[in-house]
Amino acid sequence: MKLLEERILKEGKVKEGGILKVDSFLNHQMDIGLFEEMAEELYRLYGSENVTKILTLEASGIGIACIVGQRFKCPVIFAKKSKTKNIDGAVYTAEVESFTHGKTYEIIVSKDFLHPTDRVLIIDDFLANGSALSGLVKIVEDAGATLVGAGIAIEKAFQPGGDMLRKKGVRIESLARIKSLREDGGIEFC
Amino acid sequence: MKLLEERILKEGKVKEGGILKVDSFLNHQMDIGLFEEMAEELYRLYGSENVTKILTLEASGIGIACIVGQRFKCPVIFAKKSKTKNIDGAVYTAEVESFTHGKTYEIIVSKDFLHPTDRVLIIDDFLANGSALSGLVKIVEDAGATLVGAGIAIEKAFQPGGDMLRKKGVRIESLARIKSLREDGGIEFC
Repeated sequence: MKLLEERILKEGKVKEGGILKVDSFLNHQMDIGLFEEMAEELYRLYGSENVTKILTLEASGIGIACIVGQRFKCPVIFAKKSKTKNIDGAVYTAEVESFTHGKTYEIIVSKDFLHPTDRVLIIDDFLANGSALSGLVKIVEDAGATLVGAGIAIEKAFQPGGDMLRKKGVRIESLARIKSLREDGGIEFC
Repeated sequence: MKLLEERILKEGKVKEGGILKVDSFLNHQMDIGLFEEMAEELYRLYGSENVTKILTLEASGIGIACIVGQRFKCPVIFAKKSKTKNIDGAVYTAEVESFTHGKTYEIIVSKDFLHPTDRVLIIDDFLANGSALSGLVKIVEDAGATLVGAGIAIEKAFQPGGDMLRKKGVRIESLARIKSLREDGGIEFC
């Protein structure tokens, strides 16, 4: 998606260790107008799939997922990262390893909100090693729901997550696919 | 706001310790159509205030804040709860005590995104003891920005946060104000 690539080139900053900072428009400050354009593109790709639920992971997926849910006119669920007093009852769980935070945690979704009749589109801001997306896919499968696919803002195509999950048959549509991030700040798209 | 109160009465569940579960429409599964109505009401209240930034706190404030930001046509910033590899440089910080999680943590906002020229509307899902809102107010003040006020989905008016902050001169508009939560599940509004 040209608009997103241009924004990444203009405002993205490459940090040590293959980290791309896009916090001026994607995951700290959020440009809702850009999210609307991203939602429109994802609707073009998945609009005929009768999506009934959008699923994402807290925190940085939530903003994009809400604007996508608005376009698809369906509820948005965000998987939570830790058990709080506020979730009880039966939950689906998965283990996720965070690339950014360097630790493993459990994600949970209440069984009340995902059902075998659901057709689920997963939304996230980044796809790198694929751990978060794998966890969300597992939760959809555990619920017996149909996974329509995933809509990702930025895929780091030089990391293995996208290939691994596509090989397993998951449809992944990434709005920007990065081929390489250079230490000198250079960003190349696929 | 009648629509929100009706939804709380219909789907809210009262748990031990004064906890109100509204995770079927507000903060686990999110009803974006409801968020649009809430954003419309907040625009009626704050629309003449020339808001330039919406500020919220991850994770459960983000969804509402994005739909509000869409209505106000301005960027949305979410304060982050822990220092990750992805934020560096200068930040505003505040200490927040979580009612739900029972612990204290630091919230941070990059100095890149809040400026003295900004007119900030704070959005959050709950107001109870006021710790999160106080932290966000402190960050707006530290930035030298103008605090327009706060838009809260659900205020627990029987807890001290709302009164405390109103006494300090903060304008708070809560879309549903709860007077009491009874152990038998009864919910009474102000």
